[in-house]
Amino acid sequence: MIPSNQFRKEKDTLGEIHVPSNAYYGSQTRRAFENFQISGRKLPRSFIKAQGIIKASAALVNMEVGKLPQNIAQAIITAAEEVTKGQWDDHFVVDVYQAGAGTSQNMNANEIIANRATELLGGSIDHSLNTFRVHPNDHVNMAQSTNDTFPAALNMAAVENINQRLLPAISDLQQELQNKSNQFMHILKTGRTHLHDAVPMRLGQEFSGYAGTIESMYAQIEATVDPLYEIGLGGNAIGTPINTHPDYPQKVILEISNRTNYPFRSPANLFSFMQNRNAPIRTMMALKELAVHLIKITSDLRLLSSGPRTGLAEITLPSVQPGSTIMPGKVNPAILEMVHMVCCQIIGYEAAIATAGMSAQLEINVMMPLIAYTLLDAIDILANAVSTLVTKCITGIQANEEVCKNWMEASLALVTGLSPSMGYDLTAQIGMQADVENKTLNQVLQELGLMSDEVKKAIDPNRMV
Amino acid sequence: MIPSNQFRKEKDTLGEIHVPSNAYYGSQTRRAFENFQISGRKLPRSFIKAQGIIKASAALVNMEVGKLPQNIAQAIITAAEEVTKGQWDDHFVVDVYQAGAGTSQNMNANEIIANRATELLGGSIDHSLNTFRVHPNDHVNMAQSTNDTFPAALNMAAVENINQRLLPAISDLQQELQNKSNQFMHILKTGRTHLHDAVPMRLGQEFSGYAGTIESMYAQIEATVDPLYEIGLGGNAIGTPINTHPDYPQKVILEISNRTNYPFRSPANLFSFMQNRNAPIRTMMALKELAVHLIKITSDLRLLSSGPRTGLAEITLPSVQPGSTIMPGKVNPAILEMVHMVCCQIIGYEAAIATAGMSAQLEINVMMPLIAYTLLDAIDILANAVSTLVTKCITGIQANEEVCKNWMEASLALVTGLSPSMGYDLTAQIGMQADVENKTLNQVLQELGLMSDEVKKAIDPNRMV
Amino acid sequence: MIPSNQFRKEKDTLGEIHVPSNAYYGSQTRRAFENFQISGRKLPRSFIKAQGIIKASAALVNMEVGKLPQNIAQAIITAAEEVTKGQWDDHFVVDVYQAGAGTSQNMNANEIIANRATELLGGSIDHSLNTFRVHPNDHVNMAQSTNDTFPAALNMAAVENINQRLLPAISDLQQELQNKSNQFMHILKTGRTHLHDAVPMRLGQEFSGYAGTIESMYAQIEATVDPLYEIGLGGNAIGTPINTHPDYPQKVILEISNRTNYPFRSPANLFSFMQNRNAPIRTMMALKELAVHLIKITSDLRLLSSGPRTGLAEITLPSVQPGSTIMPGKVNPAILEMVHMVCCQIIGYEAAIATAGMSAQLEINVMMPLIAYTLLDAIDILANAVSTLVTKCITGIQANEEVCKNWMEASLALVTGLSPSMGYDLTAQIGMQADVENKTLNQVLQELGLMSDEVKKAIDPNRMV
Amino acid sequence: MIPSNQFRKEKDTLGEIHVPSNAYYGSQTRRAFENFQISGRKLPRSFIKAQGIIKASAALVNMEVGKLPQNIAQAIITAAEEVTKGQWDDHFVVDVYQAGAGTSQNMNANEIIANRATELLGGSIDHSLNTFRVHPNDHVNMAQSTNDTFPAALNMAAVENINQRLLPAISDLQQELQNKSNQFMHILKTGRTHLHDAVPMRLGQEFSGYAGTIESMYAQIEATVDPLYEIGLGGNAIGTPINTHPDYPQKVILEISNRTNYPFRSPANLFSFMQNRNAPIRTMMALKELAVHLIKITSDLRLLSSGPRTGLAEITLPSVQPGSTIMPGKVNPAILEMVHMVCCQIIGYEAAIATAGMSAQLEINVMMPLIAYTLLDAIDILANAVSTLVTKCITGIQANEEVCKNWMEASLALVTGLSPSMGYDLTAQIGMQADVENKTLNQVLQELGLMSDEVKKAIDPNRMV
Repeated sequence: MIPSNQFRKEKDTLGEIHVPSNAYYGSQTRRAFENFQISGRKLPRSFIKAQGIIKASAALVNMEVGKLPQNIAQAIITAAEEVTKGQWDDHFVVDVYQAGAGTSQNMNANEIIANRATELLGGSIDHSLNTFRVHPNDHVNMAQSTNDTFPAALNMAAVENINQRLLPAISDLQQELQNKSNQFMHILKTGRTHLHDAVPMRLGQEFSGYAGTIESMYAQIEATVDPLYEIGLGGNAIGTPINTHPDYPQKVILEISNRTNYPFRSPANLFSFMQNRNAPIRTMMALKELAVHLIKITSDLRLLSSGPRTGLAEITLPSVQPGSTIMPGKVNPAILEMVHMVCCQIIGYEAAIATAGMSAQLEINVMMPLIAYTLLDAIDILANAVSTLVTKCITGIQANEEVCKNWMEASLALVTGLSPSMGYDLTAQIGMQADVENKTLNQVLQELGLMSDEVKKAIDPNRMV
Repeated sequence: MIPSNQFRKEKDTLGEIHVPSNAYYGSQTRRAFENFQISGRKLPRSFIKAQGIIKASAALVNMEVGKLPQNIAQAIITAAEEVTKGQWDDHFVVDVYQAGAGTSQNMNANEIIANRATELLGGSIDHSLNTFRVHPNDHVNMAQSTNDTFPAALNMAAVENINQRLLPAISDLQQELQNKSNQFMHILKTGRTHLHDAVPMRLGQEFSGYAGTIESMYAQIEATVDPLYEIGLGGNAIGTPINTHPDYPQKVILEISNRTNYPFRSPANLFSFMQNRNAPIRTMMALKELAVHLIKITSDLRLLSSGPRTGLAEITLPSVQPGSTIMPGKVNPAILEMVHMVCCQIIGYEAAIATAGMSAQLEINVMMPLIAYTLLDAIDILANAVSTLVTKCITGIQANEEVCKNWMEASLALVTGLSPSMGYDLTAQIGMQADVENKTLNQVLQELGLMSDEVKKAIDPNRMV
Repeated sequence: MIPSNQFRKEKDTLGEIHVPSNAYYGSQTRRAFENFQISGRKLPRSFIKAQGIIKASAALVNMEVGKLPQNIAQAIITAAEEVTKGQWDDHFVVDVYQAGAGTSQNMNANEIIANRATELLGGSIDHSLNTFRVHPNDHVNMAQSTNDTFPAALNMAAVENINQRLLPAISDLQQELQNKSNQFMHILKTGRTHLHDAVPMRLGQEFSGYAGTIESMYAQIEATVDPLYEIGLGGNAIGTPINTHPDYPQKVILEISNRTNYPFRSPANLFSFMQNRNAPIRTMMALKELAVHLIKITSDLRLLSSGPRTGLAEITLPSVQPGSTIMPGKVNPAILEMVHMVCCQIIGYEAAIATAGMSAQLEINVMMPLIAYTLLDAIDILANAVSTLVTKCITGIQANEEVCKNWMEASLALVTGLSPSMGYDLTAQIGMQADVENKTLNQVLQELGLMSDEVKKAIDPNRMV
Repeated sequence: MIPSNQFRKEKDTLGEIHVPSNAYYGSQTRRAFENFQISGRKLPRSFIKAQGIIKASAALVNMEVGKLPQNIAQAIITAAEEVTKGQWDDHFVVDVYQAGAGTSQNMNANEIIANRATELLGGSIDHSLNTFRVHPNDHVNMAQSTNDTFPAALNMAAVENINQRLLPAISDLQQELQNKSNQFMHILKTGRTHLHDAVPMRLGQEFSGYAGTIESMYAQIEATVDPLYEIGLGGNAIGTPINTHPDYPQKVILEISNRTNYPFRSPANLFSFMQNRNAPIRTMMALKELAVHLIKITSDLRLLSSGPRTGLAEITLPSVQPGSTIMPGKVNPAILEMVHMVCCQIIGYEAAIATAGMSAQLEINVMMPLIAYTLLDAIDILANAVSTLVTKCITGIQANEEVCKNWMEASLALVTGLSPSMGYDLTAQIGMQADVENKTLNQVLQELGLMSDEVKKAIDPNRMV
């Protein structure tokens, strides 16, 4: 935040207020800053960037349809593009936990851009020195409301971060799990169901399952991006395009598509778009689904790499850091645990967003800043966690073939191979006897006089996978 | 449950056990019945039906590939078709909360069918009287395991209930909301954002938003059906088709598709199918998403119909029952509250299934009976709640035009129409003054000498929608 | 439900309706039955029992304060006591998912009791044959509303089931875990943190941790019972004791306490009691906390008993049923998995109740039947699951001392014993070398020339616990 | 973070690594910093402060029991006290999402303190220049592990922030709601149940309900602090006080109690303390319970203040900022919406922590940094939100007596007053008729010839509250 001990006076409908002299924001932002001292967190860069793009696009279109004078429009566009580039990030000061539609966040952008545009036109951010100023509502916010621009910015930021960061990370994860699957396809091991001895399989098949699950999640998350392309600009306050030029909605969405290279479009139903945050809720659910599966996969990997001496130890993870402050030499599955924790948070974030989603009332949802912050943070930490998972863990996983082999050969479930010939009941008896008497299958089969070449073949794990 | 005070003895790997004499199930079902006295609830009809179809199809295919003698196969098919039709439902006695893969549920079907097939072949359900019996594992369960048939039955039951019951109910709801939207399109009313005066709209537009949201949910839930068509039969215990004829997987899935008229198919990745319950988790999330939106919509309807004298009263719901035991004449939004409660439960069910989903370990998920019961119950109560919502509430909603008009004309947000001409600051001042001085906009405009024909037009709600 | 194909006509404020001739309930119950065909589930016995107690107590007090004629009161008391005993359970027919305050549930009791009392006084349940009837509202519901009696019944049912069933089950679990802790205190084993080798401990210490956690949960759940003793009878519709004798509230609560032997009391704040369901929400959270810990403990037991040949196998669970339909001889941790599934449902139930809790509006919460059903079912399935866990699993757990010993001696974390003398850095190097070179600590220490009697002692697991 | 483009080399068991030259942390922190580029967030000040207190206390006790040389101990104490005061916060650089036990967080403290202590003893943070250094493990971490110190620091930070910030804020809220209750006790208004006309009450009674609920939450949250006083120092890695002086545990906890003025104590069961994070999970649940009730109360206040012209408008909230960028003059319930959003996040946080809680395995829970961060953030944003709610909203609420009166007099539920004399059925008919025919009760009573002085009195709202 911009430090300041000098202030200028500003005025709005609620009266006078002091604003730091060097702040590009104005009275409404300052009120919000003072009202909401809650978390110290702000909406992220990706959101501010999207706000800048919207403001620039709106100004351009308003100029084109003859509503906004050219010089003002140009100044707004320049200022908004500076916002897009991050030049004024320090002047975005409103806490994430603010009033429900994100009005303060919108005004923060409007005020910065208005003041900067005023400056570009030769004026001052101290309005008392100006005869003219670019107005945050009449000019910068023209044909807009918070209710259409805020969710549009949210969707735009989510689209970009999913497409640019999360989906590539998921794709890398799928690819690397597939690589490991291929690399481990020759390694025989025991299957385990209920954490109990099951029939044999290949280590590569186990990893192929992981790769398949992640592949399916890639498609699922990609599918949730499409509804995010619906942005209800021009829908305005409640879905009726009040105070808006008839050509504005289509033109502004087209301009945004051009500036972002994403195919944004008008919503199928503007009132539905205004009433709910359907698309972000759905996206968040897909992220939760990914989290559920990542918890399963990383828990498996922690189990398979447990040890080195007192666990399953079928695989070894790369060592990334010492694991204990008291037990020297200990190395833990640090990256997997980090991913698991991120996934716990994602599950929490989904609960937060769903609760916010059901709190919509009549024409709009007034839990939007929470939804925006939480979804964008979810995308961010998931993308980082998945990338880190790939580069610092999956890539370096090594199989312990000998260990795999030993467990497999010990498994009592090999008896399953005898079932078709001997029948379930006798076979079960053999397995149980081996268990209870703590013998190998071979021993029991010998003792029962049932051993033969055929039987030997039937319980050969190599033939079962 | 079948009452019984006479018992027959049966034997399995764990020893002897008493089974009710007239029970078609056998020892393993009985053990499970005794082990799990938890909730008294069983998996539903739709699940048992799917189990019957699977067992019949497997027997047919096993016969065709030459693994199962024709007479045994035919007897199994007949018995399994009886199960499909519901003839033996009373003999399915295992609690929902049972061992994790649903082994007992599978054995319950296997044992009933084996005993019934034995009977059809002239034998008795009392094995001590037979020289031959159809075997629940060797014959009925041939080429199958619980790990592939249980999730297949779950998917089949979910597919049928979503397609036959839930989607039609959602479609009816969308249609009826659209009807109401059309019917109410001429009615002007005030919009409300943050529960505060907002610009005017049409009551039909508000309902159009509801219809649009439900339309989107129809598509979303329909989309989650597709992954449910993947059933991993032949994947067997852990994804390796052990003890299974090579043609079996494809043939059995084809047979099931023929019997159900749904396009079931083999999973893209058998190991992923075994490791997780991806598709049911995803479906459940879509149901939660529907619940979130239904909570929003029904809460809106409760708010809009609040009164009759002390609320908004813009619409009137049909009276379906007296509302209070102490306040005579009271009629409450009973149906809407019921839907809200069902949605609360759906939200809980999703949390249960997601928690179960992340508890998968290595080759399988051992929380399957919980997932099956919960998802199928969710589909069931949602379908019933939505149908009831349509027939007993939405259809009968009436608009109170006069009330709508009065609220609209009182709204201070009409001042928004002046913003383009007078600018935000002056307009805001007018609105605030009206609020604080408890006057109408007209009064304030008169007092300020700002009233004119043009101004009158600008704040005419008819021109704003 | 009582079957019926003959109907009698009844009338209420909404007009005529047909009621089964032999039904003791009346028109309002019938409307609710027809309105709510949702789940087929009813509120449980414990709830109906509490309703009966409230109705009997209210009639007695109303008689005592001179509001209700003695003969009517006596008939109501007799009828209500029959309800308490379960004599009319078949006539409670309203679905769990009903109107929000539970008015239909209250009317179901009122109507049954009124009709039965009428009959006891010589009249008929067919009102057209009577010149006099006991009235469900004027007499049976006198001085009551749904808004005070429904939550009171909920609290009473919860109190009884927690005290009589859940707490004893938890106590048994704690006791049995403590028994196992004592029994296993001499057995040395390796600790595991992050599923990796850690310093040694006693198996009894591990179980002592489980016992300690359950002991703490017993206290926590017991503490949530106290607020349930607050029942707002006399608070009536919204907290104002309208239409109620001034002595009624205190007297009726005293009467209920006498009949139940629980110390029920008037709420600290009647309006708070009406506005929210604080106490049930809090109780449900404590059940969730128990579920979280049961998931942890049962997951541990599944891990410790994993095998028999391909897992940790430090303990063996009692065999309760065959575990696989395809893998003969397999025995799974069936009881533990059942408990885990129940816990998943509990977690879901808490989400449902919390969502219902936040849906309270103004004077009451209209999600009450959902809260009642869900909380009571949660108590029920948890009590059953915990009891079953004790008797069918914990009691029979056996330790595999040899296996414990072998894992312990292999653990690289024994090196920790050298840390105080050799320092963290050198010790870490020894541990890492053993790991990487796949050697024992002894080997590495020998090779480095560091072995001595003192060193031998320092890494002796027996001295570390 | 400390910027740096110069690096020094350090070495640990995993080899060499470059550390910024001016960093007081060392190799393990640096590895963690590089491994975990996830969220950019760190554990908060309160946590670091607690770490400093623990390290100082441990050094003191280790000196007293003769394990740590006095000069080293003194240097550590000084350095740790600097950490406590916040002098080295910039050197705490590990992301919240790190390895599961918080080892890196502990090492970050150990390394900073060791380097600073080395410096205080005349050495350099560049170890290559020293012949002696204070060792982060052997000296600073002496008698400790991450597994006991991390959860202890978590509890200490939570205790302080709950006692110093959250409870006082809740107390203020309760007090201010009570003030409003007193202030509004003379104001009659209509009750509303199901959002429908109910019997009259006082506005002060409604607020008294809110105050009562908050009072109950104060007690509940206060009660969850007690278990947080259990800190398992000396429990060490897994509950066995390995490498620890027998007097250490008691002495170190006493020292911490003295330094903090809170009555910390040893856990009832050290193994349970190690295995789970019971106390923080329970505390988080109490925060969720508070959130559930705050959502109810703030939603009520939004409903009661809805308008100004198109809602209930029974109360007016203080205006804190303009409410709309497009609708001039609009003022929204900004503070209430912010609180609602914070509560949504709290609900999510609880889900995250519960999920983390059930992920504990065997001797420890490896989701600890997530639990710490989330709980401490929850306390922080709740305390801020509640304080802001009091000062910027509740205090300034004004009642609109006239509006309250008008609604009340219009309420059809006044008919309830006739029920005792006329009976439920007739009374209901009167109420229904008034509703359907859109008449007042008076009109209908007149028309039916039922009006009398007595009747007038019976439906006088002043007599009903």
